[in-house]
Amino acid sequence: MSRFADRTGPIRLGMVGGGQGAMIGAVHRIAARLDGEFTLVAGALSSTPEKAGASASAVGLPPDRAYADYAEMAKREARLKDGIEAVAVVTPNHLHLPVAREFLKRGIHVICDKPLTGTLADAKKLAAAAEKSEALFFLTHNYTGYPLVREARARVARGDLGDIRLVQVEYAQDWLAEAPAPDNKQADWRTDPARAGLGGATGDIGTHAWNLMRFVTGLEVEALAAELTSFVPGRALDDNAHVMLRFRGGAKGMLWCSQVAAGEENALSLRIYGTKAGIEWRQEDPNRLLVTPLGGTTEIVTRASVATTEGSRRLTRVPPGHPEGFLEAFANLYGEAAEAIRAARTGAALPEGVTWPSAADGLEGVAFVEACVRSSRRNAAWVSL
Amino acid sequence: MSRFADRTGPIRLGMVGGGQGAMIGAVHRIAARLDGEFTLVAGALSSTPEKAGASASAVGLPPDRAYADYAEMAKREARLKDGIEAVAVVTPNHLHLPVAREFLKRGIHVICDKPLTGTLADAKKLAAAAEKSEALFFLTHNYTGYPLVREARARVARGDLGDIRLVQVEYAQDWLAEAPAPDNKQADWRTDPARAGLGGATGDIGTHAWNLMRFVTGLEVEALAAELTSFVPGRALDDNAHVMLRFRGGAKGMLWCSQVAAGEENALSLRIYGTKAGIEWRQEDPNRLLVTPLGGTTEIVTRASVATTEGSRRLTRVPPGHPEGFLEAFANLYGEAAEAIRAARTGAALPEGVTWPSAADGLEGVAFVEACVRSSRRNAAWVSL
Amino acid sequence: MSRFADRTGPIRLGMVGGGQGAMIGAVHRIAARLDGEFTLVAGALSSTPEKAGASASAVGLPPDRAYADYAEMAKREARLKDGIEAVAVVTPNHLHLPVAREFLKRGIHVICDKPLTGTLADAKKLAAAAEKSEALFFLTHNYTGYPLVREARARVARGDLGDIRLVQVEYAQDWLAEAPAPDNKQADWRTDPARAGLGGATGDIGTHAWNLMRFVTGLEVEALAAELTSFVPGRALDDNAHVMLRFRGGAKGMLWCSQVAAGEENALSLRIYGTKAGIEWRQEDPNRLLVTPLGGTTEIVTRASVATTEGSRRLTRVPPGHPEGFLEAFANLYGEAAEAIRAARTGAALPEGVTWPSAADGLEGVAFVEACVRSSRRNAAWVSL
Amino acid sequence: MSRFADRTGPIRLGMVGGGQGAMIGAVHRIAARLDGEFTLVAGALSSTPEKAGASASAVGLPPDRAYADYAEMAKREARLKDGIEAVAVVTPNHLHLPVAREFLKRGIHVICDKPLTGTLADAKKLAAAAEKSEALFFLTHNYTGYPLVREARARVARGDLGDIRLVQVEYAQDWLAEAPAPDNKQADWRTDPARAGLGGATGDIGTHAWNLMRFVTGLEVEALAAELTSFVPGRALDDNAHVMLRFRGGAKGMLWCSQVAAGEENALSLRIYGTKAGIEWRQEDPNRLLVTPLGGTTEIVTRASVATTEGSRRLTRVPPGHPEGFLEAFANLYGEAAEAIRAARTGAALPEGVTWPSAADGLEGVAFVEACVRSSRRNAAWVSL
Repeated sequence: MSRFADRTGPIRLGMVGGGQGAMIGAVHRIAARLDGEFTLVAGALSSTPEKAGASASAVGLPPDRAYADYAEMAKREARLKDGIEAVAVVTPNHLHLPVAREFLKRGIHVICDKPLTGTLADAKKLAAAAEKSEALFFLTHNYTGYPLVREARARVARGDLGDIRLVQVEYAQDWLAEAPAPDNKQADWRTDPARAGLGGATGDIGTHAWNLMRFVTGLEVEALAAELTSFVPGRALDDNAHVMLRFRGGAKGMLWCSQVAAGEENALSLRIYGTKAGIEWRQEDPNRLLVTPLGGTTEIVTRASVATTEGSRRLTRVPPGHPEGFLEAFANLYGEAAEAIRAARTGAALPEGVTWPSAADGLEGVAFVEACVRSSRRNAAWVSL
Repeated sequence: MSRFADRTGPIRLGMVGGGQGAMIGAVHRIAARLDGEFTLVAGALSSTPEKAGASASAVGLPPDRAYADYAEMAKREARLKDGIEAVAVVTPNHLHLPVAREFLKRGIHVICDKPLTGTLADAKKLAAAAEKSEALFFLTHNYTGYPLVREARARVARGDLGDIRLVQVEYAQDWLAEAPAPDNKQADWRTDPARAGLGGATGDIGTHAWNLMRFVTGLEVEALAAELTSFVPGRALDDNAHVMLRFRGGAKGMLWCSQVAAGEENALSLRIYGTKAGIEWRQEDPNRLLVTPLGGTTEIVTRASVATTEGSRRLTRVPPGHPEGFLEAFANLYGEAAEAIRAARTGAALPEGVTWPSAADGLEGVAFVEACVRSSRRNAAWVSL
Repeated sequence: MSRFADRTGPIRLGMVGGGQGAMIGAVHRIAARLDGEFTLVAGALSSTPEKAGASASAVGLPPDRAYADYAEMAKREARLKDGIEAVAVVTPNHLHLPVAREFLKRGIHVICDKPLTGTLADAKKLAAAAEKSEALFFLTHNYTGYPLVREARARVARGDLGDIRLVQVEYAQDWLAEAPAPDNKQADWRTDPARAGLGGATGDIGTHAWNLMRFVTGLEVEALAAELTSFVPGRALDDNAHVMLRFRGGAKGMLWCSQVAAGEENALSLRIYGTKAGIEWRQEDPNRLLVTPLGGTTEIVTRASVATTEGSRRLTRVPPGHPEGFLEAFANLYGEAAEAIRAARTGAALPEGVTWPSAADGLEGVAFVEACVRSSRRNAAWVSL
Repeated sequence: MSRFADRTGPIRLGMVGGGQGAMIGAVHRIAARLDGEFTLVAGALSSTPEKAGASASAVGLPPDRAYADYAEMAKREARLKDGIEAVAVVTPNHLHLPVAREFLKRGIHVICDKPLTGTLADAKKLAAAAEKSEALFFLTHNYTGYPLVREARARVARGDLGDIRLVQVEYAQDWLAEAPAPDNKQADWRTDPARAGLGGATGDIGTHAWNLMRFVTGLEVEALAAELTSFVPGRALDDNAHVMLRFRGGAKGMLWCSQVAAGEENALSLRIYGTKAGIEWRQEDPNRLLVTPLGGTTEIVTRASVATTEGSRRLTRVPPGHPEGFLEAFANLYGEAAEAIRAARTGAALPEGVTWPSAADGLEGVAFVEACVRSSRRNAAWVSL
């Protein structure tokens, strides 16, 4: 069965953040409705009443479900008979904790954008809150939603690569290569420690690279040595990070993330080399997975072909050759959330293979950022996580 | 402005065909809801009452809007106060005419899958019906919805290529390389002249190739010489076509379509060579357009970059580097339909650049299939269109 | 064993044509010396004495072995004790017959550039002369020298593709997209019927495409329908050809060659689709061969890997990952010639797998050009070969 | 002018090392003769008399110029009237110093394989000997011979990239991913500290990556932090290195080299990101250079096109679209050597743009290896060079 199949019973969704001018809020809304499994019914899209109202109206929310205050929203929605079952949190990082907490404590499931929080202290609190809550918590490390990322993970898990020796993961962009225009809302908060938190590039995209590497390999990092740099004059947070990794069990790796790599659009890639085979996946060409057994020839694995595992086929909607992209992968995370929320309604077991990045994964991602900062301040000394 | 912006006032949509097991119906449903501009509220998803009911329930339609008969649906919906404003016709080809006609004559907009019809006679009737109706008619040649296809069209139109000399268009697949399993619903009707019509590969994918070429170049074909073949034993319709083209004004071209090209998934490509530049686009790598000025270097144009025109940027949702694919392109056609339907409601002018494949384009596509068959029967003699 | 191994006993080589300003003569000289199997010892590099002398001196020939007249050269070299054993004929097409004949009749092996001749009458005479001579005749369809072209041939021969259904071969360039500068020696004779012969693009590069297709598939063409065009005003010969092919046994194909395809450098490609697998090779990316079993995944075959056959490994000099290119492939034809000439010296059997394009192959290539012209004049009617 | 032009007066060349079974010796011989600028006339191809004789005979050397002892060869050749003018040193690393010194002190030019030596002490001695000698010294960091590497260098030099911020250089192979067979001559000495020296992968290919990065960017490394690993059990030298780089002036970088990266053949790549543009070159696809101005579109620069600089066009032999590869690039270094040797004969100035890796460059490369080892032993601490 694949995503082709339509589902019944859309889940009532709310959103905090994602008002006019925001990018990631719009992405979440598309992802939520792509498979028809969620219906957006309430929102606190902005913190100023006028903008909140205008934004809500623009996305078709009725005035009585448009809130200017997320706490008020949580309180009221929890009491409504047809109140929201889940909320998407798409604010700047520093608000993830207070917002998510309000909903979690009322048993409303949370679908939260990454990174989990801006600081390690906040991350610990949020992970604890998620742990304590009966509600589910989903962190949108959306790249884990690509079918061929799942395929890579399945192949590693079944031993196709043998023992992993090397992991090379990169995430390069160039959109912050210059000081952004003053009205660039995306850039504004991402370069501000008060809202973004400890990490610049490390927090915004380094955590994606980290999570992807962890998701696919399952390997644990023992220690890292990081060199963070702020290339753009006046920038308070890192816009580039070079990181060396030591994994438990002896594997080694490198992680590079950058937002000043001129010419790179969204170049997330993962290469893994084991004793038996190597594997390569590139986000900008996401419908192909390259697999090379040692001494053999490279195989181009595509979505939904006979070569793929059940798990990756489950997350594709159209036959191979019909490209799927970023939004479909994002929608797959919403799909996993829908599966889990439906199962939670009835106490049913999760369908096989359903999985998602959790608050614990998010805590680990923030710990990665914190470790990078710590190492970098000590001249890139090795630090444990 | 891009598709990022959410729209208000979802358009009430019905669907004929697309019951359980169908592929293209599910694609239409995703495309319709991706941008939140349509809401599916009624359907005659299958021609047998039980299957129609089960399919309707599976996609969340209320029982009173689930029909087993499309004529009944057209009649009743036209009378309902909140009846459907548009209908998606996703049946096998031979039903496009009777189904579409029922809705057109009641002023309900039609979004019809391609090819327009299975026969030229039907195509003429449907084009006439569309012409006569006050309702709009949209033919889902979905590949015209790719942003970089629009970009290619814009560049041709503004003269970047100079005078076009050569057009090489291909559409190769391999999914019919063997006689399909008896329960393969997709393959079943597409290889049956009674339901598919005149053309096999020519009708199913050759019309896509034809339309793409026409859409981007604007060139008119004066004559063609076609060699149709049925490679799979017992197959009644062509599964491969080699076509030579002569365009008005002196350009020449080749069109190849095949459903027996082992190893090809969905390899639609278009290459155009003019006196000043050449251009290349491949559907399996749709986020890149290669443009080479004569004597210059090849430029890789990506979506939404500074190099693209307003028209192609309008149809993208996420920044370049975040791949978009087949479903987004399909949704763009629904987006164009939404623009046109909204404008039709109020009599407002269409926003600049909004365009879509029409019934007249569809008639031309069926005329292409008919000409191929005619030429092939005369030993690939040149025939006019 | 691969070309790594140095060989003893360089073969004494002469050259006719290839004086200063010529391109293909220089290519032949590099190819001849790359493996150290030939030594250039005599030449009639130009037809004017001064230029012949200057050119000879530039390539290090002693004055007494520099000729202004090829007939004189043939006569004298045949009498010298250390006279040439082989001659490279790199003149414009119309001279291939008279030049080659002079050497063949004296038992001197001929390595002749393609096409065999400019006219079919000449081709027949030259093929007959080669047949009659005790000397060997090698036609430099150099693309057959690529290791992965040999690999493709071997895989077709051993049945990996099953029965071939489709062959798509292309050779596109753009260097004649405009009327060439008057001093462009390469372009000058290639666009002149008196020197180039019947065909423009068909003769110059169409014959390469034809030969490659024949070499790899082994299929015989029963009939073809060709549309030749001269796009550049005032051009006497075709600069573009669209050709449909019917093969003996039922396969079908298309051949496209063009010298006016803006943006294309030297885009020769071959795609073959059989009942069991498809295969693709592109000259501009020659170190990879894509092979896809029907229903399987694409395999990227590289040179000298375990996946390759003995035959293709024989023709590579460095490990895969170290790219080989045009000159190495050209040198491989000289290598095959050297093997054959050494075997001929002693009457030894040819080493297994040694093969080369012959005069008979060249005759067939000119017959292809003639058939194209014939068909095109009859409005692209089907003609037999 | 390009390498098309043949040259007069072949330079008399000797060779030390490169007997039967050796790979790199054969490569040097091809490179030396490809343009006809060198003639191999003497050699001490092996250290055992029988193998030296057999090897010499196999490459066509006369018995009286076949030596079993390099010192004897240097002495005698220096006295011969037509003795060698240059010698290619293609022995294992530990012999580079003693061999090269013998020839340098007799005024015979040395063309030496990389790395310069196995140890830093040796490297200093050899650099000093080269400095002192009137003869020229050429180190075959062959990747600097690729036309598009020269193009990248020229573009960096003229400021196209602005100020460089980031350099990512990699060289990944997998041929040592397992313990090599006992009779693998290539692997044998490269994994033996007594013959290879300090570095395993770092010495063998890390020095190539280092040199390429230095050659193209011109940036000086201030400090590095390196993590060397020997993954294959029992291996005495590193087979993988992860290195972080700090450049003078503030740029940062990463260098990764590996001989255990399963699936990688010879994946050397260089990416440079500046304030104005980014650039990417991959050795396995060497005929394309990707250049992206910040905010612009990626340009695919090919060899010899109008976009290239004079310097890169000088080093190409055939038009773009006709792939050149590893051997041509290697031959370009021999070509530069020939230019320099010819100029040295007459005291003429070097033609513009002629350049090559020197003994000083080689010393720096060995210093890089030594620094890597030093850093790695100190837990990847930063060390100066």
